[in-house]
Amino acid sequence: MTQFDLNCPLPLDQNNHITMAHGGGGKIMNQLIQNLFQSQLSNPHLDTLHDGAVFEIGSVKMAFSTDSFVINPIFFPGGDIGSLAVHGTVNDVAMCGAMPKYLSLAIILEEGFPVSDLEKIVHSIKSASEKAGVEVVTGDTKVVDKGKGDGIYINTAGIGEVMSGVNIRPKNVKPGDAVVVSGDIGRHAIAIMAVREGLEFSTTIKSDSMAVNHQVNSIINNGVSPHCFRDCTRGGLASALVEISQSAQIHIEIEEEKIPVLKEVNGACEILGFDPIYLANEGRFISFVKEEDAKKVLEIIPDSVLIGKVISDMQAKVTMIQPYGPAKIVDMLSGEQLPRIC
Amino acid sequence: MTQFDLNCPLPLDQNNHITMAHGGGGKIMNQLIQNLFQSQLSNPHLDTLHDGAVFEIGSVKMAFSTDSFVINPIFFPGGDIGSLAVHGTVNDVAMCGAMPKYLSLAIILEEGFPVSDLEKIVHSIKSASEKAGVEVVTGDTKVVDKGKGDGIYINTAGIGEVMSGVNIRPKNVKPGDAVVVSGDIGRHAIAIMAVREGLEFSTTIKSDSMAVNHQVNSIINNGVSPHCFRDCTRGGLASALVEISQSAQIHIEIEEEKIPVLKEVNGACEILGFDPIYLANEGRFISFVKEEDAKKVLEIIPDSVLIGKVISDMQAKVTMIQPYGPAKIVDMLSGEQLPRIC
Repeated sequence: MTQFDLNCPLPLDQNNHITMAHGGGGKIMNQLIQNLFQSQLSNPHLDTLHDGAVFEIGSVKMAFSTDSFVINPIFFPGGDIGSLAVHGTVNDVAMCGAMPKYLSLAIILEEGFPVSDLEKIVHSIKSASEKAGVEVVTGDTKVVDKGKGDGIYINTAGIGEVMSGVNIRPKNVKPGDAVVVSGDIGRHAIAIMAVREGLEFSTTIKSDSMAVNHQVNSIINNGVSPHCFRDCTRGGLASALVEISQSAQIHIEIEEEKIPVLKEVNGACEILGFDPIYLANEGRFISFVKEEDAKKVLEIIPDSVLIGKVISDMQAKVTMIQPYGPAKIVDMLSGEQLPRIC
Repeated sequence: MTQFDLNCPLPLDQNNHITMAHGGGGKIMNQLIQNLFQSQLSNPHLDTLHDGAVFEIGSVKMAFSTDSFVINPIFFPGGDIGSLAVHGTVNDVAMCGAMPKYLSLAIILEEGFPVSDLEKIVHSIKSASEKAGVEVVTGDTKVVDKGKGDGIYINTAGIGEVMSGVNIRPKNVKPGDAVVVSGDIGRHAIAIMAVREGLEFSTTIKSDSMAVNHQVNSIINNGVSPHCFRDCTRGGLASALVEISQSAQIHIEIEEEKIPVLKEVNGACEILGFDPIYLANEGRFISFVKEEDAKKVLEIIPDSVLIGKVISDMQAKVTMIQPYGPAKIVDMLSGEQLPRIC
């Protein structure tokens, strides 16, 4: 879960009902979280405004996170809801500077769901868990009536031990920090859209869905002291940067030309009217590190790119230098660009 | 999650699709778990066949469990889906002999769900968490399209530290052990059925939904070394006993006359054609303890009742002595008595 520190009333439809935008990863979702969950359930762990909670049990510092997956379609180029459910939670735990170790797995099935599809998904969970080095240790199965679900929804929660000496918090991000993105952005959302809308491109765009915990581990084990990590899921790179700028009260400046986007993804964005910086990813994250550590990160993750830096703590904002024209303010979207992307 | 050690093929409808019975807490659900999840994702933690996983991180022995809640109706006498989601996971962690400490909270909302209902539910989560002594430390919110959910589904996962010196496993249950149930059974299911079917009784039957971790804590802190705990949720007292008999390969004998059931619940069962031992509870558990410890448990939990004992390890079965006629075999139901009870 991520939160956003806005003190606005809940935006609702005229009858005070939940809208798709409340799950979109943008301002409206963040306001719901802030104004309802955060205000009612407030405690120091929930209030850190990060992807997972970090706390000590006995002498062990642990990270704990959860995500539900309601993606449509459930099978897509580069993955399925099963692998996604492993990657999403593994990555949230990794974003806390922890090595994810154990997962829970809770599945809500709609009556009539094909068992052959369930078998494929469980196989995919097994394979993704093995690659990430985590074990599914506990689970739950529920079935809901036909018409009260959409085939399958999956929840995973994950726990891991925070690596020694690591202290990751949005508030640790400081002026001068380098901003490094771990690879090209936008592929997950475009892969989903292509299936959903029946679009065909000259080459199939595969989701970037992957576990990034081994990359995080390498960064930390190679002597980098990261100030913060943040994965670019719902709301994309832009929302992740805005969240961090708000939490740390800092001004982040990125350069549009440096943001890695596949040519095919850019092409699809032009056709569909999307901006790649708002597209959801499931295997990409941002590292905020001291300027002198940026080079190490770039060496450790070959596809990573230095896209900007933190330029001051005078104002909480994100700006983007454009190749032509003035720098522009990067804001969160209000609602969602694409519903049910994860 | 609980598992059942049967090596049967998956029971399916004619077209190999999921049926409501796959979520019913009976044989069919257990076969799905055993034949698909257990066989694909097997590891020593998942294979212990208990309500939660127990493992060590560093020097700390921890318990971890998850449950999704898809109950219909979401508000019922004695609770709602929010308090239920706290109790269910708190209890699963407690069944491992652990003090639950932290919860994750993941909510799937259907487009159009009233925000006023969400507010009530979050308030109920807050109140139930405070009573149980746990904190919600991380969460997730998703929204699905109208017609792809049923208002609200909630998943919680919970972790806690296993209490010092405690070693709880179904396999620790031994001949001679006393079987103690913590209170009267069947109220949760009847409370739900009454709302669902519009039944009226002379007094309103309230769900037994409650957190039992303080009771578990008292048992352990008063010098009892429990061999196993098991909560009587989906599938009721009967399924919990059969699961333990199968896991421990023991013969449990209970006495029908000793099983505590409210007069109103018995009356409702007669009208509806239910057997109370199969009704779901959300605040009742069985303790398996040495015969000499039973008295202490009965003192610590005033409403608890000694209902039977483990009589041999010659055969895995549960039998029930009836006031009139011969003892009868207690088996799991095949499918479900009541769908979406939790």
